Amino acid sequence: ANSPDLDLEILETVMGQLDAHRIRENLRELSREPHLASSPRDEDLVQLLLQRWKDPESGLDSAEAFTYEVLLSFPSPEQPNVVDIVGPTGDIIHSCHRTEENVTGEQGGPDVIQPYAAYAPSGTPQGLLVYANCGTEEDFKELQTQGIKLEGTIALTRYGGVGRGDKAVNAAKHGVAGVLVYTDPADINDGLSSPSETFPNSWYLPPSGVERGSYYKYFGDPLTPYLPAIPSSFRLDLANVSGFPPIPTQPIGFQDARDLLCNLNGTLAPATWQGALGCHYRLGPGFRPDGNFSADSQVNVSVYNRLELRNSSNVLGIIRGAVEPGEPSSCPCCALGATATVSPPSPAPRAHLSLSSGSLPLFLCSDRYVLYGNHRDSWVHGAVDPSSGTAVLLELSRVLGTLLKKGTWRPRRSIVFASWGAEEFGLIGSTEFTEEFFSKLQERTVAYINVDIAVFANATLRVQGTPPVQSVVFSATKEIRSPGPGDLSIYDNWIRYFNRSSPVYGLVPSLGSLGAGSDYAPFIHFLGISSMDIAYTYDRSKTSARIYPTYHTAFDTFDYVDKFLDPGFSSHQAVARTAGSIILRLSDSFFLPLKVSDYSETLRSFLQAAQQDLGALLEQHSISLGPLVTAVEKFEAEAAALGQRISTLQKGSPDPLQVRMLNDQLMLLERTFLNPRAFPEERYYSHVLWAARTGSVATFPGLSNACSRAWDTASGSEAWAEVQRQLSIVVTALEGAAATLRPVADL
Amino acid sequence: ANSPDLDLEILETVMGQLDAHRIRENLRELSREPHLASSPRDEDLVQLLLQRWKDPESGLDSAEAFTYEVLLSFPSPEQPNVVDIVGPTGDIIHSCHRTEENVTGEQGGPDVIQPYAAYAPSGTPQGLLVYANCGTEEDFKELQTQGIKLEGTIALTRYGGVGRGDKAVNAAKHGVAGVLVYTDPADINDGLSSPSETFPNSWYLPPSGVERGSYYKYFGDPLTPYLPAIPSSFRLDLANVSGFPPIPTQPIGFQDARDLLCNLNGTLAPATWQGALGCHYRLGPGFRPDGNFSADSQVNVSVYNRLELRNSSNVLGIIRGAVEPGEPSSCPCCALGATATVSPPSPAPRAHLSLSSGSLPLFLCSDRYVLYGNHRDSWVHGAVDPSSGTAVLLELSRVLGTLLKKGTWRPRRSIVFASWGAEEFGLIGSTEFTEEFFSKLQERTVAYINVDIAVFANATLRVQGTPPVQSVVFSATKEIRSPGPGDLSIYDNWIRYFNRSSPVYGLVPSLGSLGAGSDYAPFIHFLGISSMDIAYTYDRSKTSARIYPTYHTAFDTFDYVDKFLDPGFSSHQAVARTAGSIILRLSDSFFLPLKVSDYSETLRSFLQAAQQDLGALLEQHSISLGPLVTAVEKFEAEAAALGQRISTLQKGSPDPLQVRMLNDQLMLLERTFLNPRAFPEERYYSHVLWAARTGSVATFPGLSNACSRAWDTASGSEAWAEVQRQLSIVVTALEGAAATLRPVADL
Ligand SMILES: [Ca+2]
Ligand SMILES: [Ca+2]
Ligand SMILES: [Zn+2]
Ligand SMILES: [Zn+2]
Ligand SMILES: [Zn+2]
Ligand SMILES: [Zn+2]
Repeated sequence: ANSPDLDLEILETVMGQLDAHRIRENLRELSREPHLASSPRDEDLVQLLLQRWKDPESGLDSAEAFTYEVLLSFPSPEQPNVVDIVGPTGDIIHSCHRTEENVTGEQGGPDVIQPYAAYAPSGTPQGLLVYANCGTEEDFKELQTQGIKLEGTIALTRYGGVGRGDKAVNAAKHGVAGVLVYTDPADINDGLSSPSETFPNSWYLPPSGVERGSYYKYFGDPLTPYLPAIPSSFRLDLANVSGFPPIPTQPIGFQDARDLLCNLNGTLAPATWQGALGCHYRLGPGFRPDGNFSADSQVNVSVYNRLELRNSSNVLGIIRGAVEPGEPSSCPCCALGATATVSPPSPAPRAHLSLSSGSLPLFLCSDRYVLYGNHRDSWVHGAVDPSSGTAVLLELSRVLGTLLKKGTWRPRRSIVFASWGAEEFGLIGSTEFTEEFFSKLQERTVAYINVDIAVFANATLRVQGTPPVQSVVFSATKEIRSPGPGDLSIYDNWIRYFNRSSPVYGLVPSLGSLGAGSDYAPFIHFLGISSMDIAYTYDRSKTSARIYPTYHTAFDTFDYVDKFLDPGFSSHQAVARTAGSIILRLSDSFFLPLKVSDYSETLRSFLQAAQQDLGALLEQHSISLGPLVTAVEKFEAEAAALGQRISTLQKGSPDPLQVRMLNDQLMLLERTFLNPRAFPEERYYSHVLWAARTGSVATFPGLSNACSRAWDTASGSEAWAEVQRQLSIVVTALEGAAATLRPVADL
Repeated sequence: ANSPDLDLEILETVMGQLDAHRIRENLRELSREPHLASSPRDEDLVQLLLQRWKDPESGLDSAEAFTYEVLLSFPSPEQPNVVDIVGPTGDIIHSCHRTEENVTGEQGGPDVIQPYAAYAPSGTPQGLLVYANCGTEEDFKELQTQGIKLEGTIALTRYGGVGRGDKAVNAAKHGVAGVLVYTDPADINDGLSSPSETFPNSWYLPPSGVERGSYYKYFGDPLTPYLPAIPSSFRLDLANVSGFPPIPTQPIGFQDARDLLCNLNGTLAPATWQGALGCHYRLGPGFRPDGNFSADSQVNVSVYNRLELRNSSNVLGIIRGAVEPGEPSSCPCCALGATATVSPPSPAPRAHLSLSSGSLPLFLCSDRYVLYGNHRDSWVHGAVDPSSGTAVLLELSRVLGTLLKKGTWRPRRSIVFASWGAEEFGLIGSTEFTEEFFSKLQERTVAYINVDIAVFANATLRVQGTPPVQSVVFSATKEIRSPGPGDLSIYDNWIRYFNRSSPVYGLVPSLGSLGAGSDYAPFIHFLGISSMDIAYTYDRSKTSARIYPTYHTAFDTFDYVDKFLDPGFSSHQAVARTAGSIILRLSDSFFLPLKVSDYSETLRSFLQAAQQDLGALLEQHSISLGPLVTAVEKFEAEAAALGQRISTLQKGSPDPLQVRMLNDQLMLLERTFLNPRAFPEERYYSHVLWAARTGSVATFPGLSNACSRAWDTASGSEAWAEVQRQLSIVVTALEGAAATLRPVADL
């Protein structure tokens, strides 16, 4: 009863049908209007997705919207946030812009939300201005060292260096009353700042452009940590919510920032704090007497943001997998799902993704899911972020859906497409989804693929992911032609931009690791599901922009993509092909293409960093790395042996049950690295290899962070006990992981 | 490729071969000497188990000891704990016995450990004696109400009412300096107390008998919560260990207790505090002037217990399962395990249960485990506790091992036999095992069966377990003849003693729920594995003994069992047959005999209790039970539908992969009730249905406890928020559970 493996003909068909022009048309429609989370246009797009995924010719088996009631933050429509310079007599002598300049006709209108710092509290602080660089802890310490009194000041900071919300957190610790955040042309525009050099004349950010964003520290709906934000769920009292910025904060454009910064008084800022506004940056406090504002003028930051409970939806669409495909047109799963559906209890339950019709009493539907998703909500038009990803998502679902509806193909494992809501406010839709379906997802999900911004720039592929996905990404990209000149594969092009020397493979493209920058975060950190994030991106020799320049501004429009980021949409097509090939490989291969032995390199490098950079220190405190060495060696040996067993079996005709058992070992490996008790103060983070690392040593995050704390502080024995505890947590996880890789008959 | 289902002939063979006489001989050997955890005799028994399980004629596929370094507590061999009455001039006017009376020649010798309260701190408090009944919170409040000054007193308490360690915790809150704990003849001996009425003349406890026990609040090795106590693991500093009794504590026999209690001064104790010592119990403080001791005499409790790191071993033996049995003699699993074993990294790793030899390159070994275990360590000879269970364990492994070695049979799923170490100190061996193999066990274990004390008495079966195991216990016990007169099945006898009216089945035997009384605790509470505990027990109309009278004393000997508890060992045999049949059904049935729909009754009863006893209260605080109603209804519907699908399939010839998928749904259901963040202060407890319930309402424990706290206290909004949070945790768990029961193709 051996089922066919990945069908290369189907793969080729899919690759051929993914159409750049259709992606372009998808993007045009998706980014036609601003579609902020929970806005009417966001709801329209929910309907658009449902319509596409329910299309009889090119849709999926089923699709459904799942709505959550979540806490979002908006500026007041009646009382806009303002940043003013107030003279000594209390009169306003200068005001910053409240909106971006309507350069292309798309930056005006009621749906373009005023730039603001989501979740920053309302308030109207006023004080002398200081310049605090990126607003890191070190930056404020530097100001302190310089003798600048921070109490009651307004701190002007620039984007970068730390997370958005951290700037206000750090500032508040020094008594700062309000924070401004701007984007320096040095960081985003390769130094250029004049309108003639910026959009619509180039891809660079216009002087009035303001980066919006969430300033919330955690992710997920702020009121419902660890619980799905369905209407009935317990919600925290606002007084008990942590993670919002402690003081009023407002982002501004560099045009406004120049007015403020170039008139500052005080000491010259350090060289690394200087930027490209065309003046010498000084630290303040207050304005210089010979500038545009009188010396004792203050800055007033008036923030009127409001928290609101809003409905936000995820849209989920599914192609059911059939363990043994048979006649693809008569889905073996449908009937079972439909006939077994019991009459709904009253009151009506939440929707399920079950099939609405079906007739054949067939059985072999798959209980394994390959998840592919992106968020839908944007700050303004969001052509790049996130619509470039959604345009790819829709083209992929169209091509696969068409094969499905034609009866040409049905995958071995189910493919679930997801359009997440309210990502911009903190990965809210995806997080609530993982909270609602925790058990089912953790039991059955093979991998999660995220394509948020599909194309940052058109130089090269960029992939972040955990080690088991490396091999399937390599396999896929070796077979796809790279856009642009030459006849390289995506892989061969990629390796020119991002590479590393692997002890196992030699020179290979290097995958980045997964932080919490998009919707993969709850999947990897909370559920322990092998995840990846895919995009096309920059040639770093051509730009030093922190991110594509119009990110989270009203200038991120269709024309921006069409003219500057990816004319011809060939990079979009390359991402679609890459993701499509990965989806097919994950869903159709007999053996899951998750190469668990590729974790060995990571573990070895973490171990070596610990040995080299922490070994002596640990020895001083009688902490031995010996058990870690043993655990890593054991993992390496077991992972290699499992790989060999699979190789051997692949040559024969293995029993489907045996394949199932081995695939379970592959799928569940990532889960073995979860320890929900490892980092009690870090919400959702429970992956002992990929939790947030704040320590400087590139080793296991718990170990690195604990060492860093023990080292920093007066290093009481408690701090060193925590180092030892974190080391034991890692050793236990690795030993446990190795145990799951052993032949299943062993205990 | 449909494999045969449970083989009734094999089942009958096993039932027939389980031999009462051999169980008796096992017990004689196991209880020949005291075998306290980590003692030389305990180590001898490790070897005995290994020898039995490696026997070429009747052994298992493999067996191995796994050793942990754990923190145990012992009285000092040099300086025995003493309880003295000290006269006003400081001279000792009376001393309690330091040992039990050597009644049968087995109560003497160096291996009989002095009675003590394990983990009670050392110290020599002295003060006036008070009588505090069971030492509950209410008991001490009563003393306070009576105007008795507790500061600096010694509290005499009796066993029962609360956990051992709780007595000292409650006492210390009132300034009590030391605690004595005794066993009242009313509670253990049906009121009898004279030597002529007690062992060896009856099963009752002799006057000198003292119940030993662990006074530690949690379970597992105290130094390594959530980490396996292997030598390299992080260990808490002793100063950071919580859960030990706060003040010196010592248990005494009722002979000594009578001397103390019958001479007390003060108010007469309440009627419910009176016992069977043959005098009126008074509250103290101090002795009455007309008694045996002068009125101002004090009691001195000198405890010299010491904490020691000791090695304690689990012994594990495995019968490998073969998914498709084929030729049972040529185990399809062996070769794979052996050939794939890689050369051990250096230093040598911990042992694995892998096969040492094997030659056939076969594949279909099972990755599903049925676990069956009992602890090995005793307080003294431990004939009943735990050797009665181990005697059964050895007979079961002999019968199954013989069939295995003869080539007659090999199970579909692996069977793992376990002999746990150091249970008496707090389930230490089993807990460390679950910590070391967390991921593997959670992924693959079908069920855990515990038989600790196999026979408390010979009246009836008694089973504790989670609802999914009810049906397999019923199926097994209906087919086995009950010992004793008549021709009843074990089931028919059982239902006479423990029964309930089930809305689904009518009158059925009632299963108890699982607390933390034996080694099943970490399996159900920490890992979420469906578990059960099996024993033969009392006719409650014939005795009100709190437990069998010689429990944890030096009188729990082979002769005690042979003469009083189970002459002829037919109850032992009945337990062996019951456990054996359950093991075979769990390991050999094509569909797992875990009836998940039996959870519906529990959920419904929890829901009804909440509605009836908490509904009005919750409504007052605007907390709705509506979402819980919906979730329970959804669970009921999905569980019933899954049962129907399985029934339908059982009539046909289902595909093995489909069976696997359904069995995964059955096996993993229990896991979906785990939430490691539900009860952050309760170590290991994470099962939202079976966590410890302190609230009086028999509903979901988190809800019950939170309501109880909110009700008790001045009911601030925080306490009611916690009620709402706990309700949402349950609703989320039930919704998640129901989602996993849906047809697998649905999301
Ligand atoms: Ca939530
Ligand atoms: Ca431990
Ligand atoms: Zn995005
Ligand atoms: Zn974004
Ligand atoms: Zn026991
Ligand atoms: Zn015991």
